[in-house]
Amino acid sequence: MKTANPSAAVTQTELAGLRASFAGRLITDPSDQEPFTIDWRRRYIGRALAVALPESVDDVAAVVRWCAQHRVPVVAQGGNTGLSGGATPDDSGRAIVLSLARLNRVRSIDTINNSIIVEAGCTLDGVREAAAGAGRLFPLSLPSGGTCTIGGNLSTNAGGTGVLRYGNARELCLGLEVVTAEGEVWNGLRGLRKDNTGYDLRDLYIGAEGTLGIITAATMKLFPQPAAQITAIAAVADPHAALKLLEMAQDQLGASLTAFELISDLCLDLVVRHHPDCQKPFREASPYVVLLETSDSEGEAHANASFEKLMSDAIESGVVADAVVAQSIAQTQAMWQLRELISEAQATEGKNIKHDVSVPISDIGRFIDQTNALVEARFPGIRMVVFGHVGDGNLHYNVSPPADRTGPEHEAWFLGLQPEINLLVHDAVAAANGSISAEHGLGQLRRDEAARYKSPVEKALMWRLKTALDPLDIMNPGKVLAP
Amino acid sequence: MKTANPSAAVTQTELAGLRASFAGRLITDPSDQEPFTIDWRRRYIGRALAVALPESVDDVAAVVRWCAQHRVPVVAQGGNTGLSGGATPDDSGRAIVLSLARLNRVRSIDTINNSIIVEAGCTLDGVREAAAGAGRLFPLSLPSGGTCTIGGNLSTNAGGTGVLRYGNARELCLGLEVVTAEGEVWNGLRGLRKDNTGYDLRDLYIGAEGTLGIITAATMKLFPQPAAQITAIAAVADPHAALKLLEMAQDQLGASLTAFELISDLCLDLVVRHHPDCQKPFREASPYVVLLETSDSEGEAHANASFEKLMSDAIESGVVADAVVAQSIAQTQAMWQLRELISEAQATEGKNIKHDVSVPISDIGRFIDQTNALVEARFPGIRMVVFGHVGDGNLHYNVSPPADRTGPEHEAWFLGLQPEINLLVHDAVAAANGSISAEHGLGQLRRDEAARYKSPVEKALMWRLKTALDPLDIMNPGKVLAP
Repeated sequence: MKTANPSAAVTQTELAGLRASFAGRLITDPSDQEPFTIDWRRRYIGRALAVALPESVDDVAAVVRWCAQHRVPVVAQGGNTGLSGGATPDDSGRAIVLSLARLNRVRSIDTINNSIIVEAGCTLDGVREAAAGAGRLFPLSLPSGGTCTIGGNLSTNAGGTGVLRYGNARELCLGLEVVTAEGEVWNGLRGLRKDNTGYDLRDLYIGAEGTLGIITAATMKLFPQPAAQITAIAAVADPHAALKLLEMAQDQLGASLTAFELISDLCLDLVVRHHPDCQKPFREASPYVVLLETSDSEGEAHANASFEKLMSDAIESGVVADAVVAQSIAQTQAMWQLRELISEAQATEGKNIKHDVSVPISDIGRFIDQTNALVEARFPGIRMVVFGHVGDGNLHYNVSPPADRTGPEHEAWFLGLQPEINLLVHDAVAAANGSISAEHGLGQLRRDEAARYKSPVEKALMWRLKTALDPLDIMNPGKVLAP
Repeated sequence: MKTANPSAAVTQTELAGLRASFAGRLITDPSDQEPFTIDWRRRYIGRALAVALPESVDDVAAVVRWCAQHRVPVVAQGGNTGLSGGATPDDSGRAIVLSLARLNRVRSIDTINNSIIVEAGCTLDGVREAAAGAGRLFPLSLPSGGTCTIGGNLSTNAGGTGVLRYGNARELCLGLEVVTAEGEVWNGLRGLRKDNTGYDLRDLYIGAEGTLGIITAATMKLFPQPAAQITAIAAVADPHAALKLLEMAQDQLGASLTAFELISDLCLDLVVRHHPDCQKPFREASPYVVLLETSDSEGEAHANASFEKLMSDAIESGVVADAVVAQSIAQTQAMWQLRELISEAQATEGKNIKHDVSVPISDIGRFIDQTNALVEARFPGIRMVVFGHVGDGNLHYNVSPPADRTGPEHEAWFLGLQPEINLLVHDAVAAANGSISAEHGLGQLRRDEAARYKSPVEKALMWRLKTALDPLDIMNPGKVLAP
């Protein structure tokens, strides 16, 4: 019963055919669909023809074959924790949401090859725990780790705080299993470090946000667990000094340097205001601080000595004004809390406008200086909440309203500024040869903005790939690529 | 003057049009073309309509536009050091060889972003020297470094000895500039560590051996130079013990472990036989030795102490029978010579049959045991010359004739065994979920064998990408993909 007209309604008989075609749950009642059709921040309210929860890769393939046969869009979804609306269907009610939640087995762990094969619906923390259980480290780490899934992490090429040493989700992946837009299964799970036998299909599906195919399983890299992890916070005058510290830290610590996070004083103000149990790290306010982490293969004494030497060198050379090295797990946790509570504190403070941008690392100081000046000149009193993975050139360059204009009565005014502020910030990013989505993907949120900044050649190449791998345009249509 | 019939000859007038269309040299005399139409090992003797040596990316684009207009195949070439015939034209004389040799500028170095932008025709050693001149390490290193080019390294996703720590050419690349099959320029040179704004075009062109487009420039990662590099050799009973040593080394040294090379005793026999200035590292013969390298960010004393501890732990636990840590640059060089002279010594010994394979690291011991047994049972007396980057699961699993059947009179017999030996070895690789080309690419040499081992789904996906990006099939046709 092929539906020739793509907008024609699917009949109940046809839907019954879908239900019969795979093992797993099919949710057709709209009220039961809500956890899957609305994104967790409730920014995107979608509707679905049905939500399918298949139980195996063959079931995923069966669902996709049905969708291809009936020209029904299919929106793959992991933990529904995305920040760009990539996993939320549009409001037409035509799409099938395909949740990978039931594909959640760890298929195998190989501690000599240092690899793990996991299904797409495994939570990130589940993968980390499975690795730890085998005495290995899986280094990808995100605040949403208990809910987000490895399939979603790969489809959005997730980043986080360990990228400096271990890379993005892309760099952590050795192989994929993918259901194509025709509902065929490509098994590319081989856990090889070297394989030069043709085109790199793996990296094409990674970061494609389900628009080319659906990742159902992945072979991920594991690492030895470090013997010791130690954290420190250093006070720096400005981002330029932070970059000098980064260079010193990379020289002295090499690959042991696993995190290098910049935090502006305003971020710390917000955290201590809304989390009174938190304290600023230094008595004297510093315009910026840097949170560093070293992961040492020798042990705590060596890690401590390395950090103490780095910090005393940095203080002596005037790069750092003051520094504190965590002496206990509690102190380490307190330091990381200052970093991890920023988003929450900013949300408690009121509505804010987020940007997830990257620029060449060497340009971060100039970028912050000039973009701050631009925004402040255009919107006096506006507050820049600047923090991020500066060791990767990645800034969460967020904007809060003036301190005297917080609260619900100013919300509409402030959010009305969003298009203009986005344009200003993203134009500055583009001028710096940067990226307007460093680690959150495009989804719906940044799709049209990305089209503004990409060259016609690049957009045409992307469309060619889309058309080649998804000729019916059923794989998460309307995401990533602007029509 | 579009040639509608793809096999129609190009007229002299049309060729004059090509000559006029770009700045650079055009070699039309066949006798001058030889350095470009025959591969360096003289395994592939091709012919060309002309050899173009354009001088800029725009010139490359002009040549490709002319080729597209006239349906003329274009074979991109770097240093012509490939091992799979990927850069050699066929013998039809219809193709243009496009040498990137004149695009050899270092465009810029950024020591804070740790990146370098180089044109495709820069030699690998040239890139390494430019990095060193700026106080940085570019870690890719190959014996052919003085001749091979970075464009070729990327197009074949080259490996080498530093992959364990720094990855393949793919992992070292942040961005590309590419001339498409239509002769358009895609500028993707942004040197960002994080950029999630659409499909990963970069990784699609890397390893595609010029069949999708021509890489004209690249942004490559740089690293801090290690404070000290130290080498050691350990005697192990078999590859299984080598894997135990690998695990210990990764646990104790972490990312400081930068090389881990397995060498069988027969390799050492060949080296000392044909290079009498070389000596075996141990008085008592060991079935295998492992060459290890550590790159330390602290200094020589620390590197030495780390290595001494590792080796004494390994000896104490019975994993290693004996070990020697290099105490001077001369000793280090002597150790590396044992590894680097294997191919040459094997060639001096006589004709040999090469395999560049990878398997999951954990499977290397079993793979060597069983495949050796298979080959020896089928071809009694045949000698397995086994060495390679075992830390990456990559073996150069080479085969020499029996010791009493070397010399020219046995060559034809031995080379006649090649198809059968290849099949035996590569079937064993495929059964182990391995790769029949770990770091040499497919080119012409492994194209049809790769087709034997890839699934129909994967082959169909690769052809879709080829057709999407090179619809006229003019980019290095006949390479990588079997028709």
